[in-house]
Amino acid sequence: MYDPTEATKPSRHAERVSYDEASVHEILDEALVCHVGFVADDRPQVLPMLFVRVGSTVFLHGSTGARMARMAARRGGLEVVVEVSIVDALVLARSAFNHSANYRAVVAHGTATLVQDAGDKEEFLTALMEKVAPGRAGDARRPTQAELCQTAVMALPLIEVSAKIRTGPPSDEPGDLSLEHWAGLVPIREVRGTPEPAPDLAPGITLPAYLQPMTEVRGGA
Amino acid sequence: MYDPTEATKPSRHAERVSYDEASVHEILDEALVCHVGFVADDRPQVLPMLFVRVGSTVFLHGSTGARMARMAARRGGLEVVVEVSIVDALVLARSAFNHSANYRAVVAHGTATLVQDAGDKEEFLTALMEKVAPGRAGDARRPTQAELCQTAVMALPLIEVSAKIRTGPPSDEPGDLSLEHWAGLVPIREVRGTPEPAPDLAPGITLPAYLQPMTEVRGGA
Repeated sequence: MYDPTEATKPSRHAERVSYDEASVHEILDEALVCHVGFVADDRPQVLPMLFVRVGSTVFLHGSTGARMARMAARRGGLEVVVEVSIVDALVLARSAFNHSANYRAVVAHGTATLVQDAGDKEEFLTALMEKVAPGRAGDARRPTQAELCQTAVMALPLIEVSAKIRTGPPSDEPGDLSLEHWAGLVPIREVRGTPEPAPDLAPGITLPAYLQPMTEVRGGA
Repeated sequence: MYDPTEATKPSRHAERVSYDEASVHEILDEALVCHVGFVADDRPQVLPMLFVRVGSTVFLHGSTGARMARMAARRGGLEVVVEVSIVDALVLARSAFNHSANYRAVVAHGTATLVQDAGDKEEFLTALMEKVAPGRAGDARRPTQAELCQTAVMALPLIEVSAKIRTGPPSDEPGDLSLEHWAGLVPIREVRGTPEPAPDLAPGITLPAYLQPMTEVRGGA
C-alpha cells in the first residue's frame, strides 16, 4: 500500500470478476465498509458506505435525498468506483524504505443504478443485516412501505473489478539482512466487543444467541 | 453511514479545518489507511493509501511510477479527495430500517502536490513509521538518496475538510420500543496481535520494547 518497491510484487489481477471471483467475493464479504468514488461538480468525491454483495452485485445503501441517489435518479445511473480494503498486518522492514502493509483490496468500476422494486430493497436490507450480524434479520421489525420508499439502494454489477493482495514477510534488500533492526509483521485484526444494550431496552430482553460470543471478524497477518 | 434516517442526526461539520481541528486530527491520526479519490480518463478512481498527518497537511505515499504521481507531476498538482473512516460499533435497532453504524469519518478536498525536497520526503517517512509503530523510526535503516528519489510523496493541505460522526444508541421509532427485539451496540475495535519475526531475522535480535505490548489501536462504541 505505501511502499513503492512493493507495488509490483504482490499478485495483481485486473480483469473480469470471473478470473478470481472467489478472492474478490471473500474480501467484499469480510469488509463492512466500502469507499464509493464518483464525480460531482467536476470534482472527485468519496463516501464511506455500508454495503453487501449478493451474487455478482454490490449493493450500496444511501438516503433517497443524498446527492449520489439524486444524481443516479436523474441520469438513470451513476458512474462509480467502489473500493474496499482490509489491512492484515504492518510490515516492518530493516529499512525505512521497505516498510509496507499486508492488505487485501478490491476496486470495482461501473454504473450504479437505483433499485426500484420494494421487494428487492427489502431483500437488500435483509442481506445487509445478515452480513453485519448473522441471525439479526429474523430479529428485527421488517420495513414498512414508507420506510422502503425512503431507502435508496444502488446496485453495481461486478464486471470490471480487480483485487490486489500483499501477504508475507518484509522484503528487505540483501545488504540490509545483517542489520540489527527487528523485522517482521505486526498482525492487525478487527474484533467485536461485548454488546451494549440500548438504555431503553425493555426489561426481560436478553442478549440473543447470535450475538453471544465475542466474534473475531477478521484474521491476522 | 447506511441508515438514511440517521443521515441528518449526527453532528455534521463542513467548514474550514480551524472549526473543529481537534476532532479532524484525532480521526486522521487514528486511521492507518485513507481512500484517495481522483479523476483519471474521465472516470472516478479510488485507491487505499497509508498516510500521515503532520500539522495541517496530509501526506500520501505512492510510487513515482504510479498514475496519481505522474498526473500530479505533469499538471503541477492533482485534485483529490481524501476520505478516512473508522467504524466504532454496529447499531442494532428494533427495526431493520433504523439499523446503522457508529463511525467517525473525515473528507478533505483539495489539490495534492508532489513533495520535491529529499529532506521533506525523509521527514514524511519518519512521521509515517512513528504513526504506525511509535519508536520504529529510530530502529530502521534511513533511506538512501536513490530510495528517496523512488518515493513519491504527495501533500494535501487541510483546508476544505469535514468530519461526520455518529455516536450513541440506536434511534428507534417510539412505536417500536416495546417490541421484543434486542437493541443496542456491538462495539468494533482494531487490535494488534503478537508480532511475528521475519523468517530470516538474524539470531539474537529480540522484539524491541516499543512493539512489546499487544496494543489496542482504537476504542469501542
